[in-house]
Amino acid sequence: MQKIRPVTLATLLIGGIFALPIPVAAAPKDSAAIRADALKDTVVWDFTEGLTTEVGPRPAGTPQEARARDWAVARLKALGFSNVRAEPYTMPVWVRGRDEATIVSPFPQKLVLAALGNSGSTPDKGIDGEVVYFPTLADLEAAPADSLKGKIAFVSHGMAATQDGSSYGYFGAARRQGPSIAARKGAIGILIRSIGTDHHRMPHTGVQMWADGVTPIPAAALSVPDAEQLARMIARGQPVKLHLVLTSKMLKDQPSGNVIGEIVGTDPAAGVVVAACHLDSWDQGTGAIDDATGCGIAAAAALHVAKAGAPRRTIRVLMAGAEEVGGDGARAYYKAHGTEKHALAMESDFGADRVWRVDFKLPQGHDALAGRIAAALAPLGVGKGAQEAGGGADIAPLVKAGVPVIDLQQDGTRYFDLHHTPDDTLDKVDMAQLQQNVAAWAVTLDQVANASETLGIN
Amino acid sequence: MQKIRPVTLATLLIGGIFALPIPVAAAPKDSAAIRADALKDTVVWDFTEGLTTEVGPRPAGTPQEARARDWAVARLKALGFSNVRAEPYTMPVWVRGRDEATIVSPFPQKLVLAALGNSGSTPDKGIDGEVVYFPTLADLEAAPADSLKGKIAFVSHGMAATQDGSSYGYFGAARRQGPSIAARKGAIGILIRSIGTDHHRMPHTGVQMWADGVTPIPAAALSVPDAEQLARMIARGQPVKLHLVLTSKMLKDQPSGNVIGEIVGTDPAAGVVVAACHLDSWDQGTGAIDDATGCGIAAAAALHVAKAGAPRRTIRVLMAGAEEVGGDGARAYYKAHGTEKHALAMESDFGADRVWRVDFKLPQGHDALAGRIAAALAPLGVGKGAQEAGGGADIAPLVKAGVPVIDLQQDGTRYFDLHHTPDDTLDKVDMAQLQQNVAAWAVTLDQVANASETLGIN
Repeated sequence: MQKIRPVTLATLLIGGIFALPIPVAAAPKDSAAIRADALKDTVVWDFTEGLTTEVGPRPAGTPQEARARDWAVARLKALGFSNVRAEPYTMPVWVRGRDEATIVSPFPQKLVLAALGNSGSTPDKGIDGEVVYFPTLADLEAAPADSLKGKIAFVSHGMAATQDGSSYGYFGAARRQGPSIAARKGAIGILIRSIGTDHHRMPHTGVQMWADGVTPIPAAALSVPDAEQLARMIARGQPVKLHLVLTSKMLKDQPSGNVIGEIVGTDPAAGVVVAACHLDSWDQGTGAIDDATGCGIAAAAALHVAKAGAPRRTIRVLMAGAEEVGGDGARAYYKAHGTEKHALAMESDFGADRVWRVDFKLPQGHDALAGRIAAALAPLGVGKGAQEAGGGADIAPLVKAGVPVIDLQQDGTRYFDLHHTPDDTLDKVDMAQLQQNVAAWAVTLDQVANASETLGIN
Repeated sequence: MQKIRPVTLATLLIGGIFALPIPVAAAPKDSAAIRADALKDTVVWDFTEGLTTEVGPRPAGTPQEARARDWAVARLKALGFSNVRAEPYTMPVWVRGRDEATIVSPFPQKLVLAALGNSGSTPDKGIDGEVVYFPTLADLEAAPADSLKGKIAFVSHGMAATQDGSSYGYFGAARRQGPSIAARKGAIGILIRSIGTDHHRMPHTGVQMWADGVTPIPAAALSVPDAEQLARMIARGQPVKLHLVLTSKMLKDQPSGNVIGEIVGTDPAAGVVVAACHLDSWDQGTGAIDDATGCGIAAAAALHVAKAGAPRRTIRVLMAGAEEVGGDGARAYYKAHGTEKHALAMESDFGADRVWRVDFKLPQGHDALAGRIAAALAPLGVGKGAQEAGGGADIAPLVKAGVPVIDLQQDGTRYFDLHHTPDDTLDKVDMAQLQQNVAAWAVTLDQVANASETLGIN
């Protein structure tokens, strides 16, 4: 896929008029042509369709994730990437068992739920307890110590949709911190309303980490309709008793890994541009929007840059393992590659809907580069944001180490309808918006990889 | 709840001017007032919310359906209905077990599905077979005899939404007839694409009856995304092998029953008007739109008629049992009450979205009555249809016997997004459209119950 970037008509004209020596890699890039071509991209759809169909769910550290690595290595090679390889590491793995909840009284019926990552396990025969309702996480926090002894906590904390996904930070705390808080107050289990914005019987799972010194308890998310059903029952005033079966297990030292493929640049000293996504997914869906599309976008965009000729900087597509459960892949990548010169990092991990804003975190004095990128993105309906870019989990160690970062912010209005549910499947992907992502990524990567400015650390 | 219909100001004026004796029950009815009042109805929501929350799923012939009868009897009494009672009968009952499907090769992953009513059962350890794909039911029918020996048939036959629900008749044949056809050709199991118009991991169950002489085989519906996933796999050309676990059992002579409540009319000789719905539901959801809302609409509408004074004819609300599995309740009702004089029958069993058309099947010479009803409905956005009313399963034996019928046709555009899925829950009900249903039913029941015309049979 690497070829020498052809000298364009515009380059010749400028070169002719000014008679300056113009290095090939620093030639003005034709963002319009890349953009137009990328808007008709088919690689991203084929990638997403292939990974979700032929591999499907691919939880971190499982044989399915291993199949995803094999699949991705083969696909990246077939697409013409260089230096394609899997980089293995090992990790502990939480494995889901049975997820069952039944209201025993006063209104016997089953509820739909899914255990949260790292949930404690009930015995096979389950546990029984009275449900104690907390409208918000703050209400749970305010409960007296030991007040939940022998009880099952239920935190509602209902989330609304936001375009930038910012509500996830606030409401997601019920999932991230709720279980540890409930365990500390003596609860034998905790149920949360799914951190989701849909109204389907689709529980949203997700990882949570036990705070230091806390003994794990069974922890699960009810689908939004089930959480509302439970709240209605409780509002009637009688004690609500629940039978809960959440079996799961922990495995040590399971194989996981990252997959890497490169578009090799012409100037090794200029540093690597990382285009990241994650290859693992949650177990309930086929990980279409989380994050097959992200990997498809990063790979397809890199190819559109390469099609216009080898860029100055190497573009390294990083398909990280184990993002969903804590970022083992990102840490493994940094351990292996942290001392290399990284010019900039980007990550696609917020679904497949359109990019609407670009945020930057560049070294001082790079306003011109930001301006060129913003100009290349403007025709796609992408505005320049005023907030600092922060990246995501797959590039977090790089960003922490000071590597510049650009965020192409996607519309997250419907992202949390699907996120971490069985419903994260191919049919939810909008082809036109997916192609707009590729175009936004392609012109951005093109500008960054070919920028004449000095960028990055090491 | 029965009171003498008050003589209205309009009645007095007309009576005063023309000095005619006006029988109370034949007084001109104020459809506008009933309509306005019914559009603010709260009974229908409370009924739907109560039944779906306090009972939840209520499959025919199960203890949950028995709880629904107890609940409905108590609620109808509390609402002021007369002659409230359950009328028991017994029936065979099919009980769902485990529903599991796993692609064994070439792309191992689980599929989401639900056994169809009366499905045969696999052994506990399941069965294995290669999948044979049929795009439509006609393709399955065209397969040679014995060509499916040892195979699992898969019929796609994807359904599109229609406002009047008419696509259900055509595409629903895959569920109703597909299993018997596949069994006759030697299949060891059959999967159909859900007869549904959504794109969620929500399998649509539903009943099917085995044709004479056919030995039952395991039969299930895949969710639409899973059916599409399976079709994509098959399109890749390698044999697709499936492991299928569908355990279920049949029980004999289980208790079921109908629930009846009446608004007693002033003229016993004028016949009964039946306002029907069904109390049972499928097991996956809480039966909100199928058919808690229908029962709520019938009951609430009858109360709005009663509020304006006792009608000429008795309005009998029939909450039938066992509609979903073949109409045992409707047959039991007809057996017990078929010889009574029935003036007319109506049924609400198509969700909770707005009524948009009224169809009639009245004896000749009743155009005036149809005209009065159409006039009362017009302000609600309901047009007069040109096709003959046909009723539904709960009143089918009455209609077959010649009882006149009126259909208030509901908008079914999104009905098959939810029908027979776990997603049939309260949160899907639109309050304003539900109230419009009550208003349409109330003015129609008011006109029919108070019509001076002779109506009905026996």
